[in-house]
Amino acid sequence: MDFKEQLKKYQEIVNIELDKYLTKQECPEKVLNQAIEYSLISTAKRLRPILILQSYKIFREDYEECLPFAVAMEMVHTFSLIHDDLPGIDNDDYRRGRLTNHKKYNEATAILAGDSLLNHAYMIIANEVAQANNCEEAKRKMQVLNEFADAINKMIIGEYLDTECQGTQISKDELDNIHNNKTGAFFIYCVRAGAILAGASEEEINKLTIYGEKIGLAFQVKDDILSATGDAKIMGKPVGRDEEMNKATYVTKFGVDKSRELLENITNEAVEALNDYKEKAEFLRELAIYIKERNK
Amino acid sequence: MDFKEQLKKYQEIVNIELDKYLTKQECPEKVLNQAIEYSLISTAKRLRPILILQSYKIFREDYEECLPFAVAMEMVHTFSLIHDDLPGIDNDDYRRGRLTNHKKYNEATAILAGDSLLNHAYMIIANEVAQANNCEEAKRKMQVLNEFADAINKMIIGEYLDTECQGTQISKDELDNIHNNKTGAFFIYCVRAGAILAGASEEEINKLTIYGEKIGLAFQVKDDILSATGDAKIMGKPVGRDEEMNKATYVTKFGVDKSRELLENITNEAVEALNDYKEKAEFLRELAIYIKERNK
Repeated sequence: MDFKEQLKKYQEIVNIELDKYLTKQECPEKVLNQAIEYSLISTAKRLRPILILQSYKIFREDYEECLPFAVAMEMVHTFSLIHDDLPGIDNDDYRRGRLTNHKKYNEATAILAGDSLLNHAYMIIANEVAQANNCEEAKRKMQVLNEFADAINKMIIGEYLDTECQGTQISKDELDNIHNNKTGAFFIYCVRAGAILAGASEEEINKLTIYGEKIGLAFQVKDDILSATGDAKIMGKPVGRDEEMNKATYVTKFGVDKSRELLENITNEAVEALNDYKEKAEFLRELAIYIKERNK
Repeated sequence: MDFKEQLKKYQEIVNIELDKYLTKQECPEKVLNQAIEYSLISTAKRLRPILILQSYKIFREDYEECLPFAVAMEMVHTFSLIHDDLPGIDNDDYRRGRLTNHKKYNEATAILAGDSLLNHAYMIIANEVAQANNCEEAKRKMQVLNEFADAINKMIIGEYLDTECQGTQISKDELDNIHNNKTGAFFIYCVRAGAILAGASEEEINKLTIYGEKIGLAFQVKDDILSATGDAKIMGKPVGRDEEMNKATYVTKFGVDKSRELLENITNEAVEALNDYKEKAEFLRELAIYIKERNK
């Protein structure tokens, strides 16, 4: 199976699992549920949950143990997008070719759908911790829970910094700091979570952390390049909004060519970080290339 | 020490603990931190965290073990108020005599301050679970974590139902359902959390659950009465907004007199639920009376 087929297979695995959690939901509130499903069930790439599964698979044959963590990750990612799109923050009308949540429903529903997704993610992980079969497993899951909370905290700080610096000049360090928090923390969390759940050693977890850092940054740089030069039809959202909103991005700061060079370098570094894992890390290697080359 | 003095003492205990967590925060983002502190450090009554401490104290002499849970509860309560006040939801300009968070700062900051508080609450409890000294303690704390997540889920559903039914006629059952979720779930969680952490039996936890249900409802009915007939100066927010916004409340549905009668009855039922605990539950008994008689 080539990479694209494998990616599709794992996207499907994540989608099926998300669906199970959605149908399990006992919230009687149909419209709130619909709003949650609307943003959750989509053409999303599911990169973050797949990172958890694939990082785990370096050390184990299966991936089932990770599925609830994968679902929780995608829920939190979706929460962050719904709130990010709100009129009070980025005020975006479209995401992934469809109306944003508050445009499709209304602002109150979008705020609460986001809150609910964040909380549901914790409900799922809290339940996983409580269900652990032994002390070792409970410990690993508790560590993941703690790192999950830290990553979300960083994401919120990054989101805040991003909002705050709009229209101001910032340094490369400040830009890196925003994205290390806003985007990087989740990528790092995902590869670490997979490795921790699989019982990997500290040393191995650290190696994957480097890979996570690199692809997190690569993802953001590519996002900035696409936002400036991508095809609006393919991406399902308007192009050129960053410049319009005077947003600090790698492209608005360094230009497209320099950003492409940066992207090339960090992708290589990400691939190098996996050197020790040979064919076990083939998917993650290809994923780094995919992040660099994607057109949406 | 009479009840008012004791209440003050415990408010102070909660405030000192909240303060510790705020100064501990390493978020470099001063304005986001300020916005969080602004809503957290206030003249709030701290009823929910105090309920945790006092419910615990029925079974144990100390209360220290509960403090992180008390802090987490107040953080989540504050998150719910900040988001509730947003222009997209209730659009309130004042709370507790001061500008609401989005009026003092801006909408983006208020949304993210709320998100951050919800997440910080989980960070604190996740840390508590991980720090448990033995399996029994870990189990109790995990149960509390799970009930916390459920209560927050209910609160969000209640908030949604409340928003959705504005301007429509609803039945008493529907009104009860909104408030059992929106207000009741936290009161029930608090008394249960204290009892669970103290190692109380299932039967004892259930007795306290009834008390929690009753004071939760009493709190809401009194809130509705105050919103209609209270002194705006004492309350620090305008009076009559519920009617203005065509909100379904106990007062807009049954009138002030009937609501007062209901309040009297459920307060008596709350006090009765504590009959077995004699002087151990004196504070909780007085608290039920306080909820009924408060003027803000």
